[in-house]
Formats: sequence, C-alpha cells, structure tokens
Amino acid sequence: MSGTLYGVGVGPGDPDLITLKAHRLISGAAVIAYPAPDTGESFARSIAAGFIPAGAIEIPIVVPMRSERFPAREVYDGAAAEIGGHLDSGRDVVVLCEGDPFFYGSFMYLFERLAPLHACEIVPGVTSLTACASALGRPLAARNDHFAVIPAPLDEAALRARLVECDAAAIIKVGRHFAKVRRLVEELGLTEKAGYVARATLANQQVMPLVDVAGDEAPYFSMILIYKGDEPWSLAPQSSS
Amino acid sequence: MSGTLYGVGVGPGDPDLITLKAHRLISGAAVIAYPAPDTGESFARSIAAGFIPAGAIEIPIVVPMRSERFPAREVYDGAAAEIGGHLDSGRDVVVLCEGDPFFYGSFMYLFERLAPLHACEIVPGVTSLTACASALGRPLAARNDHFAVIPAPLDEAALRARLVECDAAAIIKVGRHFAKVRRLVEELGLTEKAGYVARATLANQQVMPLVDVAGDEAPYFSMILIYKGDEPWSLAPQSSS
Repeated sequence: MSGTLYGVGVGPGDPDLITLKAHRLISGAAVIAYPAPDTGESFARSIAAGFIPAGAIEIPIVVPMRSERFPAREVYDGAAAEIGGHLDSGRDVVVLCEGDPFFYGSFMYLFERLAPLHACEIVPGVTSLTACASALGRPLAARNDHFAVIPAPLDEAALRARLVECDAAAIIKVGRHFAKVRRLVEELGLTEKAGYVARATLANQQVMPLVDVAGDEAPYFSMILIYKGDEPWSLAPQSSS
Repeated sequence: MSGTLYGVGVGPGDPDLITLKAHRLISGAAVIAYPAPDTGESFARSIAAGFIPAGAIEIPIVVPMRSERFPAREVYDGAAAEIGGHLDSGRDVVVLCEGDPFFYGSFMYLFERLAPLHACEIVPGVTSLTACASALGRPLAARNDHFAVIPAPLDEAALRARLVECDAAAIIKVGRHFAKVRRLVEELGLTEKAGYVARATLANQQVMPLVDVAGDEAPYFSMILIYKGDEPWSLAPQSSS
C-alpha cells in the first residue's frame, strides 16, 4: 500500500506555533523532506528540529538562491522522484513547509508532481500574516474590509494600484524592494498607517512603525502591514470629549 | 501585579489545528472568555472544549445575532469590564478566538478596550483561508500573485471590481450572499476557477467545485476560493505532447 504525502505547515518560526497535528506527524515521521538553501541551515527544518526523530530519513530539497528567477524544474522533478520512491515503498513522507503549505512557498511544486499519483494530506499552518499582526498588536482586517496580499517584487504601477484599491494590505517578500515600497507608501500618504515586522516570532524579531525603519533594505522575511482606517476595530465607547 | 490578556487563536475547527502554545495556555487557564451566541453552543469554546480545565472561570461574551449590524458597544464594554476585573486582581485571562485573533472576528473589540491598560499577548492561529485551501487541495496564491480577501456582503459593484483586479481571491462570509456571489463569478467567467468549502476541518465539512453547489444559500462559515491561473504552481516538466 502506498504511503501518504503530508504537506505540513510549521508556522512562522517559533516552534510553539506548530499545530498539535503537525507536531504529531513530524515526531512520528520515518521520512522528512524540507526546502534547504545551498549553503546554511534550512529554515523549515530549524523550526521543527526539536522533534524530528533520530533515525528519520531526511531529504533536503536544495533550492539554489536566484533572485527573481523561480527554481529550476529539475530540482522539483528530482525531489518528487525521490519522495515518490518512498511513497511507492509504503512509507509516508512528511514535507516541512514554512508557514502554511499553500500560502505562497514552494510545496505546491512537489504537490503538483505527486498528488496525481499518491494520497496527499495538507496540514495548514500559521502564516506570517497573522504572526506579523500579532507582533504589531494590530488587526489585519475587520468587518467588511477588502484585504490584499501584495508581493513587493511587483512593478511600481501595479503596487500603487493595489495599495489604492484595498482597505488593508500586507506587503510581502519585501527584502531588497524595501526602498521602493517605502517611497510608494509615503507617496500615497499611508506611512502613518504602516507597520513593519521582520522575522516574526523569532528571537531576533523586529517590530516598529514603518517610519522608524532605518536604512533601505529589509530581510526577505519581512512584511509591511497597512490599515487605512483610523480605528479599524472602533466600537469604542463614546468619549465625553 | 496585573494579569495578562491572551488573545488565543483556536484555529478553524479541528482541535488538532490548535498550536502547541494555545493548547498550553488554555490547559492552564484560570479564566477563559469566548464569544457565544444567545442560543446554542459557542463555536470557539467547542473547539477547545477538550482541554478547558475543570474549575476555570468561564466568561461567555454573548453577542446577539444581528445580520449586517455590528454588535452593540455595550456587549464589549461589559465584557471588557468583567475581564479587566480579573486582570486587575492579578489573574491572567485567555480569550478563545475562532481562527486567528486578528483576522476579522471580534477579539479586536476587547483588545481595543483592554490593551491600553493591561499587558496583552496575541497567539496567532490557523485561519479559515489556509484550512479551506488545504481542504480543496489547491494553493491560495503563488509567486507574485496579488491575493485578495473579499467579504461577500460588499455590494455587487465593489465585489466585481475586487474580483477583476486580483490574481486569486478568497470570498468570505458567504452565507446568504451565496446566490449573488455565484452569479457574479459566472458573469466574470471564473466559475471553473472557483472552489467551495463549508465548515473546513469539521466532521461535516463540504468541499466541491463551485459549479457543483446545489441551492442558493451557504453557511456563514463557508468560503469560495478562486485561482485564475491555469496551473498556478506550474513548474511542471515539459510534456512530450
């Protein structure tokens, strides 16, 4: 009987934000795969490291870092073949996914190749969106707000249009686009509505109003949250003033 | 010393999708608050019921069901006062939040009243967005997609504009707006790109292409996910045909 492919969200960074289900699946896994850079540590693996069982077969999926270009097909062809071999042999495979498996990210490239042939189950995880909002202490969206997730690599015209249309936004994949995004946010008069979070839930997390960010760059794992309303959650008691 | 207010996401429904941190906080709580309807069971409480400690002081925040109108200020004034009393007495209070505390929902109304006066910590949770995507077996968004969260109660012109602009969307709070939304999705030629999920991760979950949904109504806890691309995650190996 064929094994099951589990796409498991490990959340934004703090191992405590892994779900009970993900924890159980990882702790009992015989085979664990995860995205890995060509040098340095796999972020996904580091989040789950505390409970990866000794003796688990590990499959790092090495994705060379190439800015703006999407990873080569061959990387995912090869990983899918290796994982498929385990599944065909009756072994379940757990794939660790930063945040959530289906909210951006790379798990979908494996899923596309393997789902037609194998049982798959996706375990949703806590995304960076909610982690950043909790760090900032501010809602993402309320009531009938139109909330937009806007990748910073988009060209300026597209970014501007998206920011104008929405009631609230998360600008993701900020990284080296930080200066461009900040300039645009200022141009649209939204600076005072904007918060910045880097490395949410990690020990080196940074949280501040966008206006307080020094410099022109930000880590890839950073986000700018914008809420246009004055008091988005305002059912405040009427003040006497 | 004043207690801490914990806004704790309990996820979309399956208790297994609660985070390790949320589980620990709830299991050790002396005081637990949660939104509750005027009749029937609290959904948030039902998700966490398996580990609410015996003897915990429970504070149901009874929110009368009123379609389209937002809950009366007095409900949250009263709840904040009661919770504030516990905090002032040095007791921590855990507030159970469906999904995530800051992704729509009502926790923000308590937070606004209490955060200026008390230590608060928000524990992010798994949202219905990711739960529905996992149930459908399809990514929410990929690469540089502009992803929009669009509440169904918006008027038709606004809904149409939002759906036209985005690369992918989650239409939330469908409920009694289902017929309007489906008609619009058809008008925009997006029916084949649309999936429907009700009660994600619960025993009575329903998952199907939008075109297969019978009838003109849907539960409040239902969502329509739209992905416009043909193969959003397409790094598929070149086929020989």
